[in-house]
Formats: sequence, structure tokens, C-alpha cells
Amino acid sequence: MRSETEIIERIWQVLPTQPAGRAGDWLRLGVGDDAAVIRAGTSAGRHTTASDWVLSTDAYLEGVHFLPDVHSPDDIGYKALARATSDLAAMGTAPRFFLLTLALPSDRTEKWLNGFLKGMARAARKFGMVLVGGDTSRFRSITMTVTVGGWSPNHGVLTRGGAMPGDLIYVSGTLGAAQLGLEIILRGPDGKSKSPRTPAGSQWGKLLQPHLRPNIQVELGRWLAGQNPSKKPLATAAIDTSDGLSTDLNHICEASGVSARIWATKIPRVQLPKALQRRGTKLDPLNLALHGGEDYQLLFTVPPKAASKLPQSIGGAQITQIGVIEPRSKALRKVNSRIKLVGFNGTTTPLPPQGWDPFSTAMRTPKKSIT
Amino acid sequence: MRSETEIIERIWQVLPTQPAGRAGDWLRLGVGDDAAVIRAGTSAGRHTTASDWVLSTDAYLEGVHFLPDVHSPDDIGYKALARATSDLAAMGTAPRFFLLTLALPSDRTEKWLNGFLKGMARAARKFGMVLVGGDTSRFRSITMTVTVGGWSPNHGVLTRGGAMPGDLIYVSGTLGAAQLGLEIILRGPDGKSKSPRTPAGSQWGKLLQPHLRPNIQVELGRWLAGQNPSKKPLATAAIDTSDGLSTDLNHICEASGVSARIWATKIPRVQLPKALQRRGTKLDPLNLALHGGEDYQLLFTVPPKAASKLPQSIGGAQITQIGVIEPRSKALRKVNSRIKLVGFNGTTTPLPPQGWDPFSTAMRTPKKSIT
Repeated sequence: MRSETEIIERIWQVLPTQPAGRAGDWLRLGVGDDAAVIRAGTSAGRHTTASDWVLSTDAYLEGVHFLPDVHSPDDIGYKALARATSDLAAMGTAPRFFLLTLALPSDRTEKWLNGFLKGMARAARKFGMVLVGGDTSRFRSITMTVTVGGWSPNHGVLTRGGAMPGDLIYVSGTLGAAQLGLEIILRGPDGKSKSPRTPAGSQWGKLLQPHLRPNIQVELGRWLAGQNPSKKPLATAAIDTSDGLSTDLNHICEASGVSARIWATKIPRVQLPKALQRRGTKLDPLNLALHGGEDYQLLFTVPPKAASKLPQSIGGAQITQIGVIEPRSKALRKVNSRIKLVGFNGTTTPLPPQGWDPFSTAMRTPKKSIT
Repeated sequence: MRSETEIIERIWQVLPTQPAGRAGDWLRLGVGDDAAVIRAGTSAGRHTTASDWVLSTDAYLEGVHFLPDVHSPDDIGYKALARATSDLAAMGTAPRFFLLTLALPSDRTEKWLNGFLKGMARAARKFGMVLVGGDTSRFRSITMTVTVGGWSPNHGVLTRGGAMPGDLIYVSGTLGAAQLGLEIILRGPDGKSKSPRTPAGSQWGKLLQPHLRPNIQVELGRWLAGQNPSKKPLATAAIDTSDGLSTDLNHICEASGVSARIWATKIPRVQLPKALQRRGTKLDPLNLALHGGEDYQLLFTVPPKAASKLPQSIGGAQITQIGVIEPRSKALRKVNSRIKLVGFNGTTTPLPPQGWDPFSTAMRTPKKSIT
């Protein structure tokens, strides 16, 4: 069995990913980033185009990404569109439209479908997106793919590949919050549940919200890409934290050819509810923050000179500096890492990517235990 | 349980499908045609854009659209991309790129994946497309969604909605050929097989090819849309025959607000192999042509004045006139039909849509028996 990385490498190896010849300069950014960037019309060579197109696609599968016995159809519909849209936020692109392929068992085509569409419509209105196409099928499991698109001014697209040594590393919001929400569902509010369920009671709503209905940082992304007082991109690289900080920061480092140093004390972490601080649950806020997936926050790098232009929060999301970009480290690469973590006690250790690999586990949990 | 039509109507009812206000004029054609058409940059209002974008998405699911025990991974890979690309052909658009979400069981990630990618790469090279994005997941069934895109000159996109009374109705290639290939696999070459399998022997290759590896009418579509000596669109409406003639012609009639009259004698039909002409198999060439799915030919309408400009074949596909567009008929609508079929004996009967509904059957076969 191949790992996800091996499968993706194989796909890129066998399928054509670069248009041939000069006429192929329409593809500004192909496979390997959060989204593809396509410059319409440059192949004609005689038109001024207004914008670069940004496109991304995500599958959302029963039993892999969600559990229909645990997650409400409304939440599934909301999150299906939200998580796909997060890839556009990471590029600094305004979302505009989406396409949906939806496959359903026959007994999900009435009440369940109504709830699902209600949640998806709420997300669509929130992000200002319209459905422009799709198809439906009958299938034994609920499966769907959401393809999202929008456009950005030329040269106003954020990628993973521009981080430079000396750049400061920032993250929005709190890391590990979505994973904590998932753990509460998987373990129960007392940490002892044997089957996943969403706990009732309003006191859990705030803790579950980052998992069930993540905020998507569209406004922050657009701000960083050029919708700021300087009218220029302020971030040199950006990604959304979908697989966990250790994996997503590694993506930025790989694409940019750099290493990173982050400080445990600086990373914005969740507070565990009292019931989950008991012995036996073993949840650790730092591990949740480093390896928990699906936060859909933005992780980005900013040159030191531009750092003073960053407000404390943008679009309602708090911005926190958690580290600094360093030159590529050979010593780190020997241990398959690109990140140095300075722990609470001041010691520095390599941090290999330990986020989510869809081929390593059945449900969306980190590669290694986060306990 | 809702039918596919009811599900789609519900989706369009609940999800936003029209951008708000004047700034929304970027959406030239939303849900309801073969593909969406989006004019980039017009929302800015001060740029000349070179082209309209055309986007379409299709799910391809194990047990619904293909059977991994019967269809080779190479054929599955080829057809997954080909059938999605057919929607671009129907719009007259040159295909450029695709995105792929691919979910696989662990035991399909090595040899099977290699074969699948080989077939998909062959299709990509044939159509001149490159992969620009996607994702992979582990899942209990092989499922995928292919999103395809390209661009066309402004006003050079074919839609379903422009057919006018008096226009002549044409179709490319032979209808029912893909359904015949599927029937040979489902029934066996002698019409008596109890479980589906692809018959060995080179004599079956030509009969199976339309089902396993359909030709996609990209060149014909582009020719009709403006890549012809007149440099103008020659077709007033077009669709690809994916669900069967009775269903797809009905789509054109509905979108255009017209009815249609077709002649059984004119419809290009398959010849049944001798073994399948025996009593008991009950396959009928006309029924295969009227209701068989997945031919991926182009069905299009041309004003009588322009008909003389049509060559006998375009891009290797023979062109046949099969009928004529007529004004909307109230009598037909009473029997839920928009098509009159003139039979071999000269009698005229209403032809209701009887093509494939993915919610009515498990495998891709017509709604009603084609026997």
C-alpha cells in the first residue's frame, strides 16, 4: 500500500501537469499548492486579462471525513463547502462559485438532503458563492466533491513557495481547536465514551464549533494578498492549516526551500475543559496545536519590514507570531524535518510532520497519537 | 425517495445559483446546461477579456458507472476523463485542464492505480489537457470526481437553449453503440451470461470500444462553435448524448421552448452481431439508439440556411440529420413528451424521455427496458 505522498507523486509522475510549448503560459501555478492559478486568455497573446483564476477541489466522504450518525446533515453541508473554500482563502482569493457532485443512498434524498442543502446554502451565502454546476448519483455511501473557484488580480495570489529566511511566521486564531472538538465527539465529554456522539448541552457548543462549523479566513487571506492599505501582497507565503501545523508548515518550508523555527510558548493553544483534564484522557494542548487537523486557520510568512503593518486581528481572526523562517537546514533534513520546535523548557528539537494522512487512518485523526 | 430530477430541482431551489446585483454579470450560464460559462473580469467593468470560461464536473463511481471486476483500470481511467470532457465538447470549448478527486481502497493504490493513471494520461494527451489540482483519500469504494475546464471566445459557446422551429436536428456517429457494448458485457457475447464480463477475442473489440473508450467529439464541437470557414457558430443548440437520445433531445427542447420531430429511418443505428440477433436477447437497434446512454456523440440543431455548410463528417465523425425542430406542442406536453417519433411504418407517436436516471437503477442502464 502506498502512502498519500507516494500516491500523489505517482499521479503527478504519470498524468501530464504542464501544458506544452509557449501557448502553455496560461498555467501560472499547477499541482502542488492549495489551488491552481490559471491566467485566462494569455494563450491568445493579444488581450489584457483582468485576473488570475483560482480553482481547487476536495472530496468529502462518509466515514472518512464525516459520520452521518454523529454529524448533522446541516453541519455536513456547511463544512463541505467551507473546507473547500479555505483553499481559496489561503490563496488570498475571493470565492465566487462552486460545483458539486453529490452521491447519496436513496434514503438520504429527502429529509437528510434538505438539511444538507440548508447548511450548504448558509455557507454559500456567507462566502458569497453560487452553485454553477454539478451532478447527482445514487450510491451506497454519502460522497461528494466540491470544486471551488474565484479570481484575484494578477500577481495578487498567495502561494506556499515564497517564504524567505528572516520572514516571521504567523497564524490566525487558535490551533488544535477543531481537533479538540472532534476528540470530544470521539471520546465523549467525559473522555470515556465508547462510540462517537455529539454531546448535548449548550456548554459544548463553543468547543464543538471549530470542528463542526469552522470559520474560514477569506477576509484575512484577501487582506494579506492585497486588500490592505498598501494595496500590495504582505505575505510571502500562505497555507491553510487543514492537516495540522507540523504538516502544513512543512509544506511551506518545502515549497520555499527553507526551514522554520517555532516556539511552543508562542503557539495559540486551546484550553482543555475540566472534564478532559482528568487523568486518562491524556489530551495535550500543544500536541493538539502541532498536529491536530482541520482548523482552517491561515499560516503565513511576512517579511520583518512589513510586520508592523499587521494589525492584531483581521476579519475577526487574531494574528499571532509563532516563529521565524531560517535557511534550509541539512541537519534537520537528515531527520526528515524542516521545523525546529523550541519547547517550553527552551530545548530545541526537530518537529517532523505528523498531521493527517488519509491513507493511514479511517477517520480524520493525526498520523500519530496526539495524546 | 426523490427522482434525480426532483433532487436536482431541490438543489437549485435551496442553493444560491445567481450572483447578486450588477456585479454578478460574470455568470453567463449557470446550472442547467452541460457546463457553466463564466466571463472572467467583467465584474471589474474596465477590462477586455479574451474568453469565456467553461467548467463542468462529473462523479465516476464504482458499481454505478463502472465495475472494477469487469472494466480494466486503464479503461476506467480513460473514460473518467473522456466522459467529463464530453461536456466541454458539447459547449464547443477546447478542453485545457482538469482536477481530480480520487478515493481508493488500500489494495487499489499500486497495480490498479498504475493502470488507471496510464489510461487517464492517454485521454489527457489525446484531448490536450493537464492536471492542475485534486486530492486523494482512502475509501471503501473506488470513487472519483473529474472537473474539467477550458475557454472559448466570447459568444462562441454552444448551449442547449437556442433551437428554433425549422432548425434541422443532427447527430454525430452511431447511436446505441455504447449501450450495445455494455449489453454484450452484461449479457455475454451469446446473450446468456449470468454475470457481467468483458468477452475475450479481437472480434469483440470494435463492438466494445464505444462503451469502453468512447470517442469524444471535441473537434466537431469546436467546429460548430466557430472553428469553421464562416468563423461563426453554426449550431443553434447542442448537447452530448450521455443519457440517451430521448432524454438528451428532450433537454434541448425544454431549454429552447420547442418540440422536435425525428424519423426512425434516419437515426444512425448499430448493427447487432449475429449471436445477439437470436431469439431471447431481444435487443433492438432502434431502442438502443433512442434510449441507450453514454454514446457521447453530439446532438445539435442547425438553421436550414446553414445546413449546406455542414460537411458529411467532421473530426472523423459522420453527421446525420435525424429530424426537425417544431413549435412547442401542447398535445405532446400532455403526455410528458416534447418529441414526436415517426416510426418505420410512418405512424407518429410521442416519445417520452426514457434515458438513464441514476436514482432508478444501480448500474447505468436505461429507465425502462431497452429490449
